Amino acid sequence: MDNYNFINGDIVSEGESVIGIRDLGLQRGYAVFDYARTFNKKLFHFDDHLKRLRNSSSALNLNIKYSDAELTESALKLVELCKFNDPAIRIIVTGGYSNSSSLVFEPNILIIPEETPTYHNDLYTRGAGLISFEYQRELPMIKSVNYLNDIRLNDLRKKNNVFDVLYQLHDSITECPRSNFFIFINDILVTPKDFILKGVTRKIILDLAYKYWQIEERVISLAELNSAHEAFITSTTKNIIPVTSVDKKNIGDGRVGKRTNKLMQLFNDYIKKNS
Amino acid sequence: MDNYNFINGDIVSEGESVIGIRDLGLQRGYAVFDYARTFNKKLFHFDDHLKRLRNSSSALNLNIKYSDAELTESALKLVELCKFNDPAIRIIVTGGYSNSSSLVFEPNILIIPEETPTYHNDLYTRGAGLISFEYQRELPMIKSVNYLNDIRLNDLRKKNNVFDVLYQLHDSITECPRSNFFIFINDILVTPKDFILKGVTRKIILDLAYKYWQIEERVISLAELNSAHEAFITSTTKNIIPVTSVDKKNIGDGRVGKRTNKLMQLFNDYIKKNS
Repeated sequence: MDNYNFINGDIVSEGESVIGIRDLGLQRGYAVFDYARTFNKKLFHFDDHLKRLRNSSSALNLNIKYSDAELTESALKLVELCKFNDPAIRIIVTGGYSNSSSLVFEPNILIIPEETPTYHNDLYTRGAGLISFEYQRELPMIKSVNYLNDIRLNDLRKKNNVFDVLYQLHDSITECPRSNFFIFINDILVTPKDFILKGVTRKIILDLAYKYWQIEERVISLAELNSAHEAFITSTTKNIIPVTSVDKKNIGDGRVGKRTNKLMQLFNDYIKKNS
Repeated sequence: MDNYNFINGDIVSEGESVIGIRDLGLQRGYAVFDYARTFNKKLFHFDDHLKRLRNSSSALNLNIKYSDAELTESALKLVELCKFNDPAIRIIVTGGYSNSSSLVFEPNILIIPEETPTYHNDLYTRGAGLISFEYQRELPMIKSVNYLNDIRLNDLRKKNNVFDVLYQLHDSITECPRSNFFIFINDILVTPKDFILKGVTRKIILDLAYKYWQIEERVISLAELNSAHEAFITSTTKNIIPVTSVDKKNIGDGRVGKRTNKLMQLFNDYIKKNS
């Protein structure tokens, strides 16, 4: 069974899913994207992802000529045709074809269903280790395709045997390359607010958490991790992954905390109710 | 007459020059490139461009499986077939096809002949205005495809009616998005050394200049522009464009300087001799 993609309004089989080499995304990294999940053939929080995609696109003067209804309908069609169960949906909006990097953009718009990545169960039960790295993503509020640094740091992850990198700038924690970061200090849930890409999962987590814990959206310094009792990261594919060490130092007692476990339960219940 | 491109070893007509949408350059900005000129069907300093392309590629673990001789031969063939006189040659090396952003890369390698951009003669005789902008390119020594910020700043250029943006960080000048920057202070030629992409034209200019002027490769502060007598930028397509104002303040007397004119003459002679 083949896979199908959406390319500028057409549903195209995988083998024929190509783009011209003059595309400004390919040639100049001028492109944005978003990435949503599906459960039981239903799109999960797709409206939130479309909203963010439109924000990213407007920031780069890229006009998406399809309505939300049209994009949603096309995405659902691809899910129906897809060879994977519960695929993820990637939508890319590029600067289109250009020889001159001029300001007149007629975007290329792609919708690509993909196998949703899964993570080892140990990560959820024993927690992940992170390594901090000084770096600030360019225009972090725009979900551009620039993940060069993220991919380049695979060597660093491997060498240090950690699950992921935790970006910091001048000792202030921002985010992981593809996840948001949270800590619990006693019953206060703290997460960075600025210079990050605000995840859809981050938003859901905050909505679920406020009934149980006080929430602070603010700067977290690296030093503050010493007084954190629990930590975790969130993303569309990872949901909640507990973080039990940063830079080889334990967070709290180095085990997955009770509050994080409760949030994971709340989030799983939420998915079940909304899919 | 059609145009032809090189795609992974094949010479392909423009209309059929496509790349699969799973390419890691398109999806994640994981790609590098270089860009050379031709004069009279001959490649100009192509070895220097290939050397820099290989440096950029190695830094991202991208292996170019073709020899310099193979790439040169293919480029010359494209020049021969090209509908433009003296086309520029763009070579792109991407992370190849990947669903997982993993470290195993089998690059896609493209060679694309393009119409060489030209600039208005006034720029060479009356000079260009620049506007400074605080920004540091990521991994500046790697010629990655990430020019999102450059393109995004077209609005700033237009609004301020300047030819280009001059990047600075903490008041130290680095480079323009696609050019290197030089000043003359009396008979001393000064150009930034660090946190820049070292242009092939920059190298030729320094080779030509050292016989006539003292050269200093070092930090240039924005304030130092007040004592500069002349300024100019260099790039593969621009050669030397005199800079007569930065942030609306004149450089020297605001006219194209005699030393810059002499360098332009030296450079034109050099091109004639080497093409």
